[in-house]
Amino acid sequence: MSESAFEQVAIIGLGLIGGSIGLAAQAALPGLRVTAYDADEAVRIRARERGLAHEVFDDPHGAVADADLVVLCVPVRAMGEAAAALKGALKTDAVISDVGSCKQSVADAIADALPGQPIVPAHPVAGTEHSGPDAGFAELFRNRWCILTPAEGTPADAARQTADFWTALGANVEIMDARHHDLVLAITSHVPHLIAYTIVGTASDLEDVTRSEVIKYSAGGFRDFTRIAASDPTMWRDVFLSNREAVLEVLQRFSEDLSALQRAIRWGDGDVLFDHFTQTRAVRRSIIEEGQDDARPDFGRRDHVADAEDKKSGDQPR
Amino acid sequence: MSESAFEQVAIIGLGLIGGSIGLAAQAALPGLRVTAYDADEAVRIRARERGLAHEVFDDPHGAVADADLVVLCVPVRAMGEAAAALKGALKTDAVISDVGSCKQSVADAIADALPGQPIVPAHPVAGTEHSGPDAGFAELFRNRWCILTPAEGTPADAARQTADFWTALGANVEIMDARHHDLVLAITSHVPHLIAYTIVGTASDLEDVTRSEVIKYSAGGFRDFTRIAASDPTMWRDVFLSNREAVLEVLQRFSEDLSALQRAIRWGDGDVLFDHFTQTRAVRRSIIEEGQDDARPDFGRRDHVADAEDKKSGDQPR
Repeated sequence: MSESAFEQVAIIGLGLIGGSIGLAAQAALPGLRVTAYDADEAVRIRARERGLAHEVFDDPHGAVADADLVVLCVPVRAMGEAAAALKGALKTDAVISDVGSCKQSVADAIADALPGQPIVPAHPVAGTEHSGPDAGFAELFRNRWCILTPAEGTPADAARQTADFWTALGANVEIMDARHHDLVLAITSHVPHLIAYTIVGTASDLEDVTRSEVIKYSAGGFRDFTRIAASDPTMWRDVFLSNREAVLEVLQRFSEDLSALQRAIRWGDGDVLFDHFTQTRAVRRSIIEEGQDDARPDFGRRDHVADAEDKKSGDQPR
Repeated sequence: MSESAFEQVAIIGLGLIGGSIGLAAQAALPGLRVTAYDADEAVRIRARERGLAHEVFDDPHGAVADADLVVLCVPVRAMGEAAAALKGALKTDAVISDVGSCKQSVADAIADALPGQPIVPAHPVAGTEHSGPDAGFAELFRNRWCILTPAEGTPADAARQTADFWTALGANVEIMDARHHDLVLAITSHVPHLIAYTIVGTASDLEDVTRSEVIKYSAGGFRDFTRIAASDPTMWRDVFLSNREAVLEVLQRFSEDLSALQRAIRWGDGDVLFDHFTQTRAVRRSIIEEGQDDARPDFGRRDHVADAEDKKSGDQPR
């Protein structure tokens, strides 16, 4: 079992990420006390039933009073307000962290709300399309990346101890500049989500194709988009508004690239399509080699695991 | 065990789909003889090693000479040529089928090549990103849809027997007009694939983000796109060129919808984003209720199956 430099961690917000942190911290760090708060009473009740923390408080001050680390797990645009609500209740050296998907705007909001407090913004790159107090599980962060973006001047101890905390939860920690983080996530996460939300909406609006047909034949590729497009609407609205610049930059590039392929289809230019499709295969192979995904087709959705294991080497063009 | 009205089926092309048909037919229909041909000698050798058919011929005429059903499993734009190569070798009442992802253009090409032969176009909506003779497995079609698009005037027996064949392989058969099929698949499969190919390319071209960073943080959503974008380039080039009209129509609508969301981000209109994201969640729920996908987060990619089973009811917004 690991040990933590922190004696108490307080979690503010008990959705998928906050609940998973609570479960993971209790499992991995038995000497650590885990307290929590959520603004929604129904969530607090369910969180107590599931044991997401040792103690779930009815007010934020109680939860953070003795905490050495406070992790804000609320939607990105609610971070500033959630931080402000802790004012006056914190130990002076309590480290403030968060799990937002955009880092620069969140870091600014927390620093404005709690000047002088050590701040170590964090972004665990892990999730499912589920949300709420029933969604969390202790293994969510295992072998996933957690990006920390401490600003210059952050006490080295605070950054190191926060990194150790995430490592204990099973994550692989990376340190990155906040602005660079926001661009990397715009392409790997934010824009893919926006595109998935868009195509699912486009499908719903097609007059000549029924909703039932879209659903029936979703295995053809659409299904993967619907999974992404089922993610929490509040969280994602906030992400797009908070990471506006990087998202718009990547979207503009995407639109230009899509137009080029659209033009190739219109004019029957098969070589342009073939060359583009061949290049993208290499990216997929790299992801599997890096261990970021499973090579099995459909990730074991069907019952042919043994069969699929036989042909892990079978990803060859015919 | 099922029985087939056909005594022999011939498979032309032994990639993912052709190989899976061979394995599934041998498993499900023990009285049926399965013959096959592939234009690539290396594929024929591997197909014999894997036992994808009872007999793999070195020429197409041998494979189809006594066949009651011939299934063309080659890229969409190669269907006409593959059909023409069978001329003079077929029994007069042999049913010609195929597995192409576009139906109107393929049906036209086969009818031109083999006038007078009964034709029952088919599209099994199943697949993985893998291709080639090692990719096939007998369970690929189980509980997946297979859409038949027989033209008016097709002998009823031919359509019924082909439907029975696919049912024996585990598929759920639907009958549909070819042009309507092409529109339904444009939205559920073809455009999602084009979008996935595009965003993976956009990511590769970003100067400020390294390829390694894209791969490391792909779990944020990008990973699902790379899986789709790893599909066979030749097959997909042909699909887009053959289903041009429907793909361009859906792409135009998608681009308009994306522009509307992009505008909402630029102008900070959170309500537009929230309302759109809320609507798309309902589509995802319907797909899970229809049994077209698994509600478990990440489809069991990680080792938390028991935990995930506990919270199947947990898909609630916070």
